[in-house]
Amino acid sequence: MTHAVPRLAVTLGDPAGIGPAIAARAIAAFMAGQGKATDTYPARLLAIGPLALLQAELARARLPLKLVPVTASAPWEDIPDGVLPVLDPAPKVALPEPGAPSAEGGQIALAAVDAAIDLAVAGTVDGIVTAPLSKEAVRLAGNPDFIGHTEHLASRCGHAPVRMMMTCPQLTVVLVTTHLALAEVPHRITAEAVFDTLRMTDAALAMHMGIANPRIAVCGLNPHPGEFGREDEMRVVPAIRKAQAAGLAVEGPLSADALFARVVRDSSHDAVVAMYHDQGLTPLKLLGFETAVNITLGLPFVRTSPDHGTAYDIAAGRKNDGVADPSSMVAALECAVRWTTRNRV
Amino acid sequence: MTHAVPRLAVTLGDPAGIGPAIAARAIAAFMAGQGKATDTYPARLLAIGPLALLQAELARARLPLKLVPVTASAPWEDIPDGVLPVLDPAPKVALPEPGAPSAEGGQIALAAVDAAIDLAVAGTVDGIVTAPLSKEAVRLAGNPDFIGHTEHLASRCGHAPVRMMMTCPQLTVVLVTTHLALAEVPHRITAEAVFDTLRMTDAALAMHMGIANPRIAVCGLNPHPGEFGREDEMRVVPAIRKAQAAGLAVEGPLSADALFARVVRDSSHDAVVAMYHDQGLTPLKLLGFETAVNITLGLPFVRTSPDHGTAYDIAAGRKNDGVADPSSMVAALECAVRWTTRNRV
Repeated sequence: MTHAVPRLAVTLGDPAGIGPAIAARAIAAFMAGQGKATDTYPARLLAIGPLALLQAELARARLPLKLVPVTASAPWEDIPDGVLPVLDPAPKVALPEPGAPSAEGGQIALAAVDAAIDLAVAGTVDGIVTAPLSKEAVRLAGNPDFIGHTEHLASRCGHAPVRMMMTCPQLTVVLVTTHLALAEVPHRITAEAVFDTLRMTDAALAMHMGIANPRIAVCGLNPHPGEFGREDEMRVVPAIRKAQAAGLAVEGPLSADALFARVVRDSSHDAVVAMYHDQGLTPLKLLGFETAVNITLGLPFVRTSPDHGTAYDIAAGRKNDGVADPSSMVAALECAVRWTTRNRV
Repeated sequence: MTHAVPRLAVTLGDPAGIGPAIAARAIAAFMAGQGKATDTYPARLLAIGPLALLQAELARARLPLKLVPVTASAPWEDIPDGVLPVLDPAPKVALPEPGAPSAEGGQIALAAVDAAIDLAVAGTVDGIVTAPLSKEAVRLAGNPDFIGHTEHLASRCGHAPVRMMMTCPQLTVVLVTTHLALAEVPHRITAEAVFDTLRMTDAALAMHMGIANPRIAVCGLNPHPGEFGREDEMRVVPAIRKAQAAGLAVEGPLSADALFARVVRDSSHDAVVAMYHDQGLTPLKLLGFETAVNITLGLPFVRTSPDHGTAYDIAAGRKNDGVADPSSMVAALECAVRWTTRNRV
C-alpha cells in the first residue's frame, strides 16, 4: 500500500442489470466531488466492465465524464485527473439486452470481478467496489457451482474465512452465518465461528472505522438467550468470554428483539454481531433500505457492494421508468474510500 | 356482549414491579380523557389487584382518581361515573417490597389474572388488559410449570390455539411460533400452523381493526425462501395457497430482510406473519419500542398487554428514579377499548 491515495476498482456488474447505471452515477458523483466536501478523501478509480455500456449510461444521465480504455498492467499511467480509466476484460462478448439473466451477462460480470481480484491481490488496487451480478447468469455462463460474489471472492483468496458486515448510518451488523436454511443455523453456531466473528469485527472497526476500543453487542441464537435451548450457554457464551479475556469490549448474548432497538436508540454499541441472516439483516434493512453497504471482512483487501441485486425489472424499464436509485452504490464507493484511507494511516 | 359500552378488566400485575404504577397512570389518563378526544371510545374499567397499592401509585403521580372496593359478582353496580371500581382477589396476602420476585408477588399477580379470566369467561367483561407479571415470581408461588401470561390464558380457556400479535402504529406482526429454541422452529412450522395463523390474522384485522379485506404478507422460514431449505416450499407455500383459495389476500413467502422495510415504507400490507420470535419482534420493537402492544389472538375475549416486563430495577428506584414509562400500557388499554368496541359493531 504505497500509493499516494487509495486506488479502487469498481466493477460494473451484470450488464443487463442496473449495475452499469448506478456505477456510472456513483463514479461521476465521486469524481466531481473530489476534494470539495470536507468529509471526503481523495482516491483514484478504475472502472471494470464494458466501456461502451458505461459511456451510454453516462450519456443517459447527462454526466460529462471522460473515459479512456486501459490495460490491466498499468491502469493509471498517463491518465490525467478527471478522466476515468476503464478496463474491459471481456471485450469480445456480445452485450445482452437489459432485463434478464444470460450467459453473456454472467460471463461479462464474472470477468470483471476476476480482473478486480487479480488487481487487488497484486496490490495494484487497495479495494474493490462491486455492482450487482446475477448468480443465475453466472451459472448460465458455465459456472454451475457459483454461490455468490462473496463466496467467489473468498475462494479466489485461498478460501479465506469471510464474514458479511452490513452498515448504515445508524447501525452496523456482522453475521456469523449467512445464506443457509434456518435448520442449519444452530449447527453452524460454534464457539470458534462466533469468536472469529468477534475478532474480525473488532479488528475491522478499529482498523477501518477509526474506533479505538469498539463496543460489540452479541445476539443470542435463541430468543431470551438462556431460557430456551443450550446453544447460547454452550457455544456463544464461551466465545464471548474468550473475546473478553483477549481485551475485546463484547457484551452478550442478548435477546435480539430488544437489543437492536437499544443500540439504535442509545448508540450503546458500535456493532451488533448476529447469528444468522434474518436476525441481523431485517433490522438493518428496516433502518437503511437502499443506503446500506455490504462489506466483506476477512479478505486481504477492502471490498464493498450495495445492498441490493441486479433489479432487472428496473434495468428493462418495467419499473421506475428504468431509473435506478444509486444511493447504495454511492454509499458503497464512499465506504470503500474511507476504509482504504483509514487502512493506510 | 350486551353492555352499553365495552367493559374491561385491568390487572395490576406483579405488585413488586412497575405494573401498579403504569396501570394507575393509564387508567387515570383514560378516565380523565373519556369522551373528550374524537378518536376515543367510551368504556367502563375495573382494576384488579391490591387497592392500597393502586391508591399509593395514584397519590405518587398526583392523580385525583376515586377508588371503591367491589366484589366479583357485580363490579359496576351503583358505581358513579368517574369512580374506579377495584377488585382485590388476594386481600390477605402481604405486599412484597418493590424490586424483586417473591412468592407473595407471584400469588397476587396470578390471582388478579385468574379473577380477570373468570369475569371474561362469564361475560362480565369484554376484554382484559394485563400489566406485567414475573414468571419467576409465579413459579415461586407454587406454580412450577407456569410458562407465561399467554400460555396461562390459553390453558384456562380450554387450551385455545393462540397466536401472539404485536402492533405499533407503523407495523402489525403475528407470530406462528413464539418462545422456543431456534432449533425447534423448523419442526413447528407446519402447513396447518401457518394456515391457522393466516386465518386468525385475517379474522382479527377484519373484526377488530376494521379492515375489510386485510392484505397479509408472509415471511419465509428461510432467507430468500426457495433458495435454501425445503420448508418454505413444502409447508409455507401450501398454507398460503389454501388461504388464497379461501379468499384471503395473502402474499408470500417473502424474504424477511426486505419485506419489513417494504411494508413500512409502502404500507403495502396490513400485517406481516412471521415464522418465529426474533424474525417478527426484532423489526417490530425497532419501530415501536415502548409503544407496542401485545395482543393474544384465539381467546374468546380481547386481551392486550404492554410489550415490556416488570422492570424491577425501575420499580425499586434503581433506574429512572423509579419513574416508569406508561406509554405501552396506555397503548394496550386504548387498543383493548378499540378492539372491544369494534367487536360489538
